[in-house]
Amino acid sequence: MSVENRIVPVILCGGSGTRLWPRSRAVRPKPFLPLVGDSTLFEATLSRCGDAARFAAPVVVTGHAHLTHVEAQLGGDSATRIIVEPSARNTAAAIALAALRLPGDAVMLVCPSDHHIGDPAAFRAAAIRAADLAQDDWLVSFGIEATAPETGFGYLERGAAIGERGFRVARFVEKPDLERARQFLEHGGYAWNGGIFAFKVSAFLAELGRHRPAILAAAQDAVTKGIEDGARFHPDGEAFARIAGESVDYAVMENTDRAAMVPADMAWSDIGNWQALHLALDRDDLGNATRGDVEVVDCRNVLVDSDGPHVSVIGLEDVIVVIDGNDVLVTTAAGAQKVGKLHRAANQ
Amino acid sequence: MSVENRIVPVILCGGSGTRLWPRSRAVRPKPFLPLVGDSTLFEATLSRCGDAARFAAPVVVTGHAHLTHVEAQLGGDSATRIIVEPSARNTAAAIALAALRLPGDAVMLVCPSDHHIGDPAAFRAAAIRAADLAQDDWLVSFGIEATAPETGFGYLERGAAIGERGFRVARFVEKPDLERARQFLEHGGYAWNGGIFAFKVSAFLAELGRHRPAILAAAQDAVTKGIEDGARFHPDGEAFARIAGESVDYAVMENTDRAAMVPADMAWSDIGNWQALHLALDRDDLGNATRGDVEVVDCRNVLVDSDGPHVSVIGLEDVIVVIDGNDVLVTTAAGAQKVGKLHRAANQ
Repeated sequence: MSVENRIVPVILCGGSGTRLWPRSRAVRPKPFLPLVGDSTLFEATLSRCGDAARFAAPVVVTGHAHLTHVEAQLGGDSATRIIVEPSARNTAAAIALAALRLPGDAVMLVCPSDHHIGDPAAFRAAAIRAADLAQDDWLVSFGIEATAPETGFGYLERGAAIGERGFRVARFVEKPDLERARQFLEHGGYAWNGGIFAFKVSAFLAELGRHRPAILAAAQDAVTKGIEDGARFHPDGEAFARIAGESVDYAVMENTDRAAMVPADMAWSDIGNWQALHLALDRDDLGNATRGDVEVVDCRNVLVDSDGPHVSVIGLEDVIVVIDGNDVLVTTAAGAQKVGKLHRAANQ
Repeated sequence: MSVENRIVPVILCGGSGTRLWPRSRAVRPKPFLPLVGDSTLFEATLSRCGDAARFAAPVVVTGHAHLTHVEAQLGGDSATRIIVEPSARNTAAAIALAALRLPGDAVMLVCPSDHHIGDPAAFRAAAIRAADLAQDDWLVSFGIEATAPETGFGYLERGAAIGERGFRVARFVEKPDLERARQFLEHGGYAWNGGIFAFKVSAFLAELGRHRPAILAAAQDAVTKGIEDGARFHPDGEAFARIAGESVDYAVMENTDRAAMVPADMAWSDIGNWQALHLALDRDDLGNATRGDVEVVDCRNVLVDSDGPHVSVIGLEDVIVVIDGNDVLVTTAAGAQKVGKLHRAANQ
């Protein structure tokens, strides 16, 4: 791949991460927290695409709420371009904005900014294969190795091979129930849809125009009327507001006949709740992970994370304890799914 | 009972209550906390003996560490006398100090200051029966209705009836193992020894002199050389320090042939740990008890007590969560026994 054909990372920075309340909050959202290791999820996302031989400077698509965090964590990297969404209109529109600001023959690598990837080398290898398929006008999803019968993810059913580079997507499956998720895992031909994509700009825009012409037209209008401001680009708010928000999966991937996938076994986690974070962290022999001033006695598989107060935990199993400022969360692993629905988390 | 023969409450205020850390601390010990309801355990102890028709003004025996709390919570009650122990020498010596400051024909009702009694009327009735036996020179223990096979308490085996007023104590049993505790409960002739006693002063001093003459002699010396200071009395430190500390059970009750008991079914708890406190509190239909800014979801039998921060608890059962200043405790009910052994609690 020549320098001219370097992959352009398109980093999507939206979402509030209320399921990681109280650590993640409206004023300090999930992508900008050092949840695993010392880097924030956003910083780690940038770092995975940091090899200048393979990757061009990224485009970050974000909203006003996150802009301060984005610019602070970019740390003066002037090559990165930032598209400031005037309102949140889901991923199809966000990717369209980026595509409309890039040359038609560029290959975009669309990455959420709030996932963890434990094996960056495997990510990089999958990205190169996906970009290669995208060059041939395939719309490529990362098919993430399913390691558990998760009911919170969409699944991709693997179709016919496309040479040795990847596979067609036979079918997109919405979040299944547990029984079906188990069948998928047993069957083996299914992967998680992790929201990571490689698209050639021209191919993406063509398929978007075919299946969602209204989104494309409004995004074009928003970009045409947009305003440059140094590294920032502000699409026109009125034009953008006309878009009916839809995910790229619904709007494009499930409709195109050019959907492909590359398998990716890269210790991925969406860090979708505290239990998922626990599994992504280093744990001791008893499965315990602690951060801060913590004393743990007779515990197994606990996650205890304190930003200040001393925490003593005795006799618990599969429990998560989080202290953040004036908030304390204590939940079972199973209960972690409900954190975002707490009154306190919803009304922070 | 005439006014002259009113019962003299002798309130013992020692102990640090580390098993209720982090709420109970060296600087703010268990008797002086409002653990059940709005009164502190010490205030409730005074209040139970507050009927002037039956009870004389109390004598409080305490140490320097607790003196400030005692005087603050007495609230200017000038009739109460305070004996300030120069050092901690266990209950036989503490009771001896009180006895030596009272007329020989007075009846003392010895009460720990850190227990909870849910049925004060039953306590009062038992106190009157016990005082009546004490008038006849019986050394009387409250035999507390055993409601569970507790292994943390001593037991009294009920002996022959003494009229209709009570029973001889056939035997004192040290803390039994679970198997024996179950047998006691099944047998029915056993009660808990809760450390509440009625003694006529002259009878107590006679038995103490018979079985522990050294304790009596040193206590007499300490009182003789002691100093009055308003409501406070300071026994002589040097004389008192010579005493080998021993509980009144070991020193007197297990040796005298005048040991008696009155049954007392009065919703008693020693509030010996967080689990015991949980059982003494009002609970909702699911067994949950909360205090402070707390949100509980899908929980059963949890106790959540916060002095400030908001606490959210999801999906837990039989768990205790306590927030106090810069400390957070999360423990199973079973683990509550280990709280006093935490590094943090031991080195507060």
